[in-house]
Amino acid sequence: MVQANDPARPRLQVSCIQFEPIFGDVAGNVSRSCELIRAAAASGSKLVVLPELANTGYVFQSTDEAAALAEEVPTGPTSEAWGALAIELGIHIVAGITERAGDALFNSALLTGPNGPIGVYRKAHLWDRENLFFRKGDLGFPVFETSIGKLGVAICYDGWFPETFRQLALGGAEIVCVPTNWVPMPGQPEGEAAMANTLHRAAAHSNGIFIACADRIGVERSQPFEGQSLIIGPKGWTIAGPASRDRPETVTASVDLGDAARKELSTFNSVLRDRRVDVYG
Amino acid sequence: MVQANDPARPRLQVSCIQFEPIFGDVAGNVSRSCELIRAAAASGSKLVVLPELANTGYVFQSTDEAAALAEEVPTGPTSEAWGALAIELGIHIVAGITERAGDALFNSALLTGPNGPIGVYRKAHLWDRENLFFRKGDLGFPVFETSIGKLGVAICYDGWFPETFRQLALGGAEIVCVPTNWVPMPGQPEGEAAMANTLHRAAAHSNGIFIACADRIGVERSQPFEGQSLIIGPKGWTIAGPASRDRPETVTASVDLGDAARKELSTFNSVLRDRRVDVYG
Repeated sequence: MVQANDPARPRLQVSCIQFEPIFGDVAGNVSRSCELIRAAAASGSKLVVLPELANTGYVFQSTDEAAALAEEVPTGPTSEAWGALAIELGIHIVAGITERAGDALFNSALLTGPNGPIGVYRKAHLWDRENLFFRKGDLGFPVFETSIGKLGVAICYDGWFPETFRQLALGGAEIVCVPTNWVPMPGQPEGEAAMANTLHRAAAHSNGIFIACADRIGVERSQPFEGQSLIIGPKGWTIAGPASRDRPETVTASVDLGDAARKELSTFNSVLRDRRVDVYG
Repeated sequence: MVQANDPARPRLQVSCIQFEPIFGDVAGNVSRSCELIRAAAASGSKLVVLPELANTGYVFQSTDEAAALAEEVPTGPTSEAWGALAIELGIHIVAGITERAGDALFNSALLTGPNGPIGVYRKAHLWDRENLFFRKGDLGFPVFETSIGKLGVAICYDGWFPETFRQLALGGAEIVCVPTNWVPMPGQPEGEAAMANTLHRAAAHSNGIFIACADRIGVERSQPFEGQSLIIGPKGWTIAGPASRDRPETVTASVDLGDAARKELSTFNSVLRDRRVDVYG
């Protein structure tokens, strides 16, 4: 039942950049992220993931504050900086950005590659006070066919919904890139690993996909973040990370995205085919 | 947004019995399970979960072999033994059983209580060679309203499918009882915790439900099992266990099933309400 791997498929080095954006310092955040992307590319990475809202920081106090920092995608200065860097380095970048589209603000992530901008994803499930500032994502769960593979994107609280990864896997995603700003969960025992690590490992296993999560660190306006960025293989085992809770780190793995085509868990079982769609409501 | 807890709701002690059924020794397995159920009830447990196919063992070599050991539910001798014990002890029991129904065999779990048999669940997602012997479950994902709360049942590979727990949570389940026979997963690193623990913790968190998993131990016809039975709270944190990989153990927790009514993760967020059913395919 196991499909032959495509022998022509090269391995892909993926990096998730965990760092601390400084609230409101867009120029500084973009500049710092570009340094870190350059370092990851210099080490051989061809796909680099940045955290959620990596250009602006996260904890907005008002819609006006969010609007003042938002930019159009892919025509704003942040998109142009990351876009130019991807072209220069010949890599793909997935990065969280505060997006303005007409009158609407979105918590978005752009995908840009060696040949320029590829697309944008808008966060479907909004966390906490994001509901005051952002509109819910209106682009569904797109899967982008690129020269390195089929990429999906999810942002932070999207990962709390198994439906997110099911949609992306059924859409053919081989790897889901997750720009995120994970926060502690209710009842979290002292020192326990982030619940998000558990959620994403389960999602990778149940869908047979790679998942690459780039989280931020630091405390912003009294909101702490969880760090623990990681890259997960298609059987749900962690293949890089998790990073620390509180230090800037780049988590890197070399993967064969063709492994995401092998959904089998036993001679008789394949995780997407075995769904009982006849009995799900 | 937090709902008031029902002050009249008593706490419920739950036990998951991890033991090693001996293949084919139905009388011995039932007898041993009854001893262990008595001990759990003596310690105060009012809900006791046994492993998958706890009366027969797991590794059938042929349909004839499975058919010879299968029984009707709830009229067969195994159902009657567990049913009588539940009445005698005034408890609820969820237990895996090899079920015959007409010409069909099912990998099932019965629910029986202080007033007699309540219902049966038939495993929806069949693992590996089970596909040769058993028919796929044809009863959906029932939620049983009992005197102790709203109970769902899932069996082993059902837990690989997030849809299982979504269906049960949307159906009102407060706790899902999981009779199981977990086996090692592909690529499992030496000494790593069972993937099943990760899958069920994620499911509990994403649905705000309790999950109580009773696994078997031992090696049967060269098939090893994973043990690591556990009880998980509705925020996804483990509240009892995980048990060892290889020793008989009873894992016990005292719970307030009313906690499963509080689906909130933040002022703005509730895990079932936040689903973007408008964009799921």
